[in-house]
Amino acid sequence: MIEKYPSELLQNAVEAISSLPGVGSRSALRLAMHLLNQPRENVHHFTDAINRLADEVQYCPECMMISDNGLCSICGDRHRDHNTICVVENVRDVMSIENTGQYRGVYHVLGGIISPIAGIGPSDLTIRQLVDRLHRMDCTEVEVILALSGDVEGETTAFYIYRQIEGFGVRVSTLARGLGFGDDLEYADSLTLGRSIVNRQIFKP
Amino acid sequence: MIEKYPSELLQNAVEAISSLPGVGSRSALRLAMHLLNQPRENVHHFTDAINRLADEVQYCPECMMISDNGLCSICGDRHRDHNTICVVENVRDVMSIENTGQYRGVYHVLGGIISPIAGIGPSDLTIRQLVDRLHRMDCTEVEVILALSGDVEGETTAFYIYRQIEGFGVRVSTLARGLGFGDDLEYADSLTLGRSIVNRQIFKP
Repeated sequence: MIEKYPSELLQNAVEAISSLPGVGSRSALRLAMHLLNQPRENVHHFTDAINRLADEVQYCPECMMISDNGLCSICGDRHRDHNTICVVENVRDVMSIENTGQYRGVYHVLGGIISPIAGIGPSDLTIRQLVDRLHRMDCTEVEVILALSGDVEGETTAFYIYRQIEGFGVRVSTLARGLGFGDDLEYADSLTLGRSIVNRQIFKP
Repeated sequence: MIEKYPSELLQNAVEAISSLPGVGSRSALRLAMHLLNQPRENVHHFTDAINRLADEVQYCPECMMISDNGLCSICGDRHRDHNTICVVENVRDVMSIENTGQYRGVYHVLGGIISPIAGIGPSDLTIRQLVDRLHRMDCTEVEVILALSGDVEGETTAFYIYRQIEGFGVRVSTLARGLGFGDDLEYADSLTLGRSIVNRQIFKP
């Protein structure tokens, strides 16, 4: 427990840094002292990068992903399959899926997940924009992949979106769940193992 | 590994945040997204606190500790023992010792430790200021406690300072080292245990 700071400036900086998720007051003090030991222009470079992100960020009008100006690079790519829309919670999920190199469709970024505990309802997400987007498309050709996390919030959100779009005639799919590649049966949780058996796939040697 | 960011603003912010010690690119992305989800004035409050620390920080002319204006609250305290000077590496060490509530003397903050590997020599520290400070005092009354870490750098720095001040006639002491309170003999490292036996103290029940 840190109780008393020798300087109010230091205390304010430590309190600001420890407002970040997962950063306690000890780590925050360590980071503040690190910044204090840097040349002043490095500190300004650090804070400018964060201010510019907050002040100048824009979102792709099509998929709601962060984008520096207008249409994002994925929505603007003619070579991608614009009839396959992968619905994800946030930009980090887009980056994770892009890093697999396995997906050639486009995205729709919800900007969060329905969570009554955190006070996040459907209207706080970009579900309205997804519905509008499907309105502008020939839905018989479209597949919507609900790539949300497997917890209660993720399943609630997936179900809510499904109910909003089921009337459009789009194909709605979700991520395959099962044992990870290389996973040991012995250490798999029983829910995952159970679903892996029920949803077993044809063996392709 | 994060390879491709959808936005240069985001990439710059992530790179700035991951320049902090102990923060990888994944954590940095998580923190950047957290900041992006905050109201803009919260982000400005965060960066302002850091900028003000870097821009307006001052040091106590007596002990070289961070201080908002002039003499720090410890050096300015008439009730403390100004003839006992505890030499520490940094402000965090001052705060740790202050939190024990066991010390009533004053401090001298070196601002680092001699480390040839990190390119930090004696002239990068406030050893000169310590020598000047002792010059202004009646040294026969003074005790200097070298409260530095027990590693090679700490011992090197303590020895260097000792050589600089041994001619002043000050009493020079160092922190007691031994088993921690509540420590189990079985799990103590042999160096610490060995020193604990050699430096054994009179039993005071």
